[in-house]
Amino acid sequence: MSSNRGVAYIEPGVVEVQDIDYPTFELRDGPGVNPANIGRKLPHAAILKVVTTNICGSDQHMVRGRTTAPPNLILGHEITGEVVETGPDVEFINVGDLVSVPFNISCGRCRNCKERKTGICLNVNPDRPGSAYGYVDMGGWVGGQAEYALVPYADWNLLRFPDKDQAMEKILDLTMLSDIFPTGYHGAVTAGVGVGSTVYIAGAGPVGLAAAASAQLLGAAAVIVGDLNQERLEQARSFGCETVDVSLGDPKDQIESILGVPEVDCAVDAVGFEARGHGSGSSTEAPATVLNALMDVTAAGGALGIPGLYVTGDPGGIDEAARKGSLSLDLGTGWAKSLSFTTGQCPVMKYNRELMMAILHDRVQIAKAVNATPISLDQAPESYREFDSGVARKYVIDPNGMLSGH
Amino acid sequence: MSSNRGVAYIEPGVVEVQDIDYPTFELRDGPGVNPANIGRKLPHAAILKVVTTNICGSDQHMVRGRTTAPPNLILGHEITGEVVETGPDVEFINVGDLVSVPFNISCGRCRNCKERKTGICLNVNPDRPGSAYGYVDMGGWVGGQAEYALVPYADWNLLRFPDKDQAMEKILDLTMLSDIFPTGYHGAVTAGVGVGSTVYIAGAGPVGLAAAASAQLLGAAAVIVGDLNQERLEQARSFGCETVDVSLGDPKDQIESILGVPEVDCAVDAVGFEARGHGSGSSTEAPATVLNALMDVTAAGGALGIPGLYVTGDPGGIDEAARKGSLSLDLGTGWAKSLSFTTGQCPVMKYNRELMMAILHDRVQIAKAVNATPISLDQAPESYREFDSGVARKYVIDPNGMLSGH
Amino acid sequence: MSSNRGVAYIEPGVVEVQDIDYPTFELRDGPGVNPANIGRKLPHAAILKVVTTNICGSDQHMVRGRTTAPPNLILGHEITGEVVETGPDVEFINVGDLVSVPFNISCGRCRNCKERKTGICLNVNPDRPGSAYGYVDMGGWVGGQAEYALVPYADWNLLRFPDKDQAMEKILDLTMLSDIFPTGYHGAVTAGVGVGSTVYIAGAGPVGLAAAASAQLLGAAAVIVGDLNQERLEQARSFGCETVDVSLGDPKDQIESILGVPEVDCAVDAVGFEARGHGSGSSTEAPATVLNALMDVTAAGGALGIPGLYVTGDPGGIDEAARKGSLSLDLGTGWAKSLSFTTGQCPVMKYNRELMMAILHDRVQIAKAVNATPISLDQAPESYREFDSGVARKYVIDPNGMLSGH
Amino acid sequence: MSSNRGVAYIEPGVVEVQDIDYPTFELRDGPGVNPANIGRKLPHAAILKVVTTNICGSDQHMVRGRTTAPPNLILGHEITGEVVETGPDVEFINVGDLVSVPFNISCGRCRNCKERKTGICLNVNPDRPGSAYGYVDMGGWVGGQAEYALVPYADWNLLRFPDKDQAMEKILDLTMLSDIFPTGYHGAVTAGVGVGSTVYIAGAGPVGLAAAASAQLLGAAAVIVGDLNQERLEQARSFGCETVDVSLGDPKDQIESILGVPEVDCAVDAVGFEARGHGSGSSTEAPATVLNALMDVTAAGGALGIPGLYVTGDPGGIDEAARKGSLSLDLGTGWAKSLSFTTGQCPVMKYNRELMMAILHDRVQIAKAVNATPISLDQAPESYREFDSGVARKYVIDPNGMLSGH
Repeated sequence: MSSNRGVAYIEPGVVEVQDIDYPTFELRDGPGVNPANIGRKLPHAAILKVVTTNICGSDQHMVRGRTTAPPNLILGHEITGEVVETGPDVEFINVGDLVSVPFNISCGRCRNCKERKTGICLNVNPDRPGSAYGYVDMGGWVGGQAEYALVPYADWNLLRFPDKDQAMEKILDLTMLSDIFPTGYHGAVTAGVGVGSTVYIAGAGPVGLAAAASAQLLGAAAVIVGDLNQERLEQARSFGCETVDVSLGDPKDQIESILGVPEVDCAVDAVGFEARGHGSGSSTEAPATVLNALMDVTAAGGALGIPGLYVTGDPGGIDEAARKGSLSLDLGTGWAKSLSFTTGQCPVMKYNRELMMAILHDRVQIAKAVNATPISLDQAPESYREFDSGVARKYVIDPNGMLSGH
Repeated sequence: MSSNRGVAYIEPGVVEVQDIDYPTFELRDGPGVNPANIGRKLPHAAILKVVTTNICGSDQHMVRGRTTAPPNLILGHEITGEVVETGPDVEFINVGDLVSVPFNISCGRCRNCKERKTGICLNVNPDRPGSAYGYVDMGGWVGGQAEYALVPYADWNLLRFPDKDQAMEKILDLTMLSDIFPTGYHGAVTAGVGVGSTVYIAGAGPVGLAAAASAQLLGAAAVIVGDLNQERLEQARSFGCETVDVSLGDPKDQIESILGVPEVDCAVDAVGFEARGHGSGSSTEAPATVLNALMDVTAAGGALGIPGLYVTGDPGGIDEAARKGSLSLDLGTGWAKSLSFTTGQCPVMKYNRELMMAILHDRVQIAKAVNATPISLDQAPESYREFDSGVARKYVIDPNGMLSGH
Repeated sequence: MSSNRGVAYIEPGVVEVQDIDYPTFELRDGPGVNPANIGRKLPHAAILKVVTTNICGSDQHMVRGRTTAPPNLILGHEITGEVVETGPDVEFINVGDLVSVPFNISCGRCRNCKERKTGICLNVNPDRPGSAYGYVDMGGWVGGQAEYALVPYADWNLLRFPDKDQAMEKILDLTMLSDIFPTGYHGAVTAGVGVGSTVYIAGAGPVGLAAAASAQLLGAAAVIVGDLNQERLEQARSFGCETVDVSLGDPKDQIESILGVPEVDCAVDAVGFEARGHGSGSSTEAPATVLNALMDVTAAGGALGIPGLYVTGDPGGIDEAARKGSLSLDLGTGWAKSLSFTTGQCPVMKYNRELMMAILHDRVQIAKAVNATPISLDQAPESYREFDSGVARKYVIDPNGMLSGH
Repeated sequence: MSSNRGVAYIEPGVVEVQDIDYPTFELRDGPGVNPANIGRKLPHAAILKVVTTNICGSDQHMVRGRTTAPPNLILGHEITGEVVETGPDVEFINVGDLVSVPFNISCGRCRNCKERKTGICLNVNPDRPGSAYGYVDMGGWVGGQAEYALVPYADWNLLRFPDKDQAMEKILDLTMLSDIFPTGYHGAVTAGVGVGSTVYIAGAGPVGLAAAASAQLLGAAAVIVGDLNQERLEQARSFGCETVDVSLGDPKDQIESILGVPEVDCAVDAVGFEARGHGSGSSTEAPATVLNALMDVTAAGGALGIPGLYVTGDPGGIDEAARKGSLSLDLGTGWAKSLSFTTGQCPVMKYNRELMMAILHDRVQIAKAVNATPISLDQAPESYREFDSGVARKYVIDPNGMLSGH
């Protein structure tokens, strides 16, 4: 039980599966670990045998070399597992529990955690509020695309599934609770989606599809997803979404042909800083394109939920402004329409319990919506490449072969 | 076009269809008209050719003789119609529009209307805040179970359907927007129902069933409906609800057998003051039974939505306390659990547009949920009797024969 | 440092100062300790040298013999102190910190704590959700009217004051953060008090006065406090409240003479189950009087905040209904007005940080509002008697003589 | 009574008092009137004898020539008056009423008005949602810096003061209800200001000062106002604000020296698109400066209220981006901190009644905060120039000499 293997970032375009340390109740030095975190004692942690761990679009930012991630950083922040060991301070989580891990690490003791803002916990990342497993500049917590992973503050962070057998049957749905389902849902909620809303979602990657499924769950009347990838648009249509092909031009006209009016109540940016232009400009990056288009199509009084990642520094940005995370936004348009905007990491713990209930009672089929595709740990490098090529799949790594039937 | 016929309350147990006045742009004296309202000018009104007008459980309170409703009061507050004439002040509603009428009449000019509290408008009922068509002590506005009806403050009150043909195809759903769909929805919303909630709804009459459909639309994980009428429980099961037969005893144990825990997050009282006891006591009225049972089954921190009607005076109450609208409530239990409670008429305009959108985009089948059953105007008296006997139907009067196929 | 003294309940009407055990990191058997809690390990706890600990009106329920509190129960749930020792699991609270203790004990790990509902924590009281120090049926956590006290889950529960010297200068204000200031504030918030509101608060005891000061802080236009104790009414007037003398009759007329209208937007019940009648009936208990009066004076669309305690069982109740916590409420009146109601313990952690900020920046003078009166530990028995007699004082015990010189 | 005089925009830098038409119940052609509005019947309007009408910073945008306002446009959207005539459809507003006019004109009949979004009414401005009196591209409603003014949809728009004599005594406070008090308050509310908040407000003009007074009224712990105009900073200090002199550099350090931490919970942009740089750059326009600085000083999880005007087109903008209302915003910083942003016109009717109550009950001294300075109509041109020069005054025109003796 003391061996472990995990997916490491090596260099732009390259990840590989490595032998790595089995977790210990102390945060030890390693690639990307913040010096102030080295040697941190973790008696409040639990060690998980990983049941599923998903590849995320935000991992791709690192793998594409768009960040300062160091070589050998172990990736993975979407983790579901079975508890195999608990630290001495853990009181309510038990060995054998099947649990979902929120991707944002939080302490459960600071002001922000007490206010449910677990995406900006003050105590886990010495650099700034907010943290995550296996991510550059997030404190150095080891990633979970591995056989075993450690979760600090286990009593606080972990969401236990009430029935293990039932949970294993729905594991491809439940695995989405660690990140993209709540992240998409947060995008929809902060965009003001409710019963009867019309919604436009920019981006048909897994987060966009999760936002679409969330909007449906919240009672939206019409959910429209825009992208320039045909396969992903087809995936969106597979569960009842309307679609806009942004390679054909700005979304406004296509929205009008769907709804009869050229605007929606609510808009979600599920793309982020690596956005490309619309229409004939779609082959080059244009980081402000999505937000400006969303301001254009959102009706006066509407809101934009922005789960898509925008970064403070992007070494690969197309120009000086982009490299420092600055965008040329049509705020005049937004202001004239009284729009509001919500940015930032989803605070997963605010939503994961209620979304788990919706899954367990068959109210939502999130695995189908994002086309969950189980793979082995050794298939991870290949799946990273495929995901980067734009396949309409959400890869779910099964590092310990616990998902029967694949 | 100047003739009119409507459903009149005659005496306990008796209603009949009468010739009545065609509406005019002035509120004239008649059965139940508040003296202060007599002669009120209504240049802001619209006259509707009634397309559908439903029989409501709250009409039954009058028909059973549980109120001081005078003979010849024209009944009906659930109205959908086509505009055939508008007063000189009407600016945005046009002849030919197909519209839904909120059952609560409101002026759109007082503090409460400006705050979206249209259920307690200050300017339409001289007796107290709040009003309705065809209802005792509500100001004397003529009921809409008729061929033609008048709606004051038409620009404010009326909800226009965007496409008449599309609307006529879904008219049995849209007719529920005037009252029971928003009323059930308000019960669910004020009970705190959201994605993943577990919900118990007391009462499987049309409002209870509408609350159940609403809870599903809001993303509830599990919706449980309790009643002692088997036909109505069967109706609840027909669209995916779980059920509790309260004639078998308190709901707590049955809820536990459904959910695994003996409590729910949210509770809705869709019964009101004419509640009967549970178990062997179910043959006698016990007005506090429902609320005490709901406090018992609602988890700590939960909320109760109370759309079921409680009255300030009930001449037919079982005891002195009931006759003055006083209930013996286990508030100690509620307080220990930090419960909250929301009472009162649903402010329909807060919800009807978004629910219309959900209907028009096929996100909810409210007509099926409540078993909408079209009838002619002349069938109304018989349908009142059947509804009172407990059939699981929502009767939709079609006074002008505009619903093809029946 | 291993000696300790505390205030014990002996029998109805009698409390005394006793030698008691110095706290340990385990919950040991003692008066009122729930068997399931005996031996519970508390490595997450901190031991406090108590700086101030206040006598609360809810302590009086026990001392008057209105509960099943056992002899020798150590009283006190309003605690402010200096940390003198921390358990091995405590990570962010340090020896020397000056801290406020929320009266409701919570774990920071259960669903309710994660949702900020710390008044109904699921993990600290084996009997039911919710707990408190030194209180009957609350799990058996030792009271804090003592020289030293233990606080479990210290990282979660404790609110640290940012500057000790500054805090000691305002200690008579800050000591109110453990209970009555947030409790009164919760009453005001749940009554819907905001900028420009008119507010009626039933009860001019410390919680009522704290609700009044809170309503002012929230921007209320007019704050009216009702009681039949002249000294307490005078205290309310001392900081700008209007008053109603309920011994002169129902509050409605007096409110009209103050505001010009006989109703308010918001109402707070700061009395609870030991309410007395109004007017000539004010010498006998009438448990539903306050709530019925509040429904009478609250405008349609308003809300009632109910921080006043209602119990599930009251051995000293005036009749059978009162003894089981059942009240005869005019719900018909409330329903006709669309009122809403919020009950239960205040979740202190939801508010204490923001109220601390308001105190530290001189935005509120809560000590003056409630007439904070420091006493020694040995004066506690006498002060209990005086408080019970109705003096307009909030007694602040200084068990270690740390307030001398302030 | 059929004569009238008003303040007209002539050319950049020049306004003058002209004889103008007395209002009629029809919107007639004139400078800036939208063709689609010409001839619009206004039977729902009231004509006001103007008691006070204030000069606003947003008028300055026109007067400086930063818009396409045509010559002879009558200015003024901050109007308080006495009703002297009502159209035939007006039912609840009476001749003799003393009333406040929300600057945003709204119909009270469209979806947005029904949802309280009166700043984006759909029925009054043919160009786009939202309108105002005396403003370019807002539909052509005649301005109110005049002896007489017309208010459409009078029953909906007008806020009546309950007692005329009392109101005239506080008229310099009440006159702020038409725009800057609610606008500043909306900025504070949408920035999340509540009890105990720390707040930074960019801009010490009248809106900034109103936001500061609002933040205090909402219970903020510390209110810090930044500007580079010393007189305005002195004005902010006069009612208890802390100040930051942005000519000395970025606000972060100065905030830290005030609060001990370099960040605030809430931030308000009361500057808008004509922002200047900080520090040595403060002599040139730098439209994104304020928003970028606010993102820098707002703590993670905070919010920005943006009442400061940003325009879709600015012919006088410093560069191409500015001329089309595009700003270079550090959204990466905002995203990393999970900030949210609310833009747009304040929907005055959402707040003016509660703020009126706060004024009438002496809970706020808004006239003092903004240094209200009454002038005659003929002094308007001179006062426009003085206001533009940066004096710390809010000019209140008294066009009918009704304030003499106050």
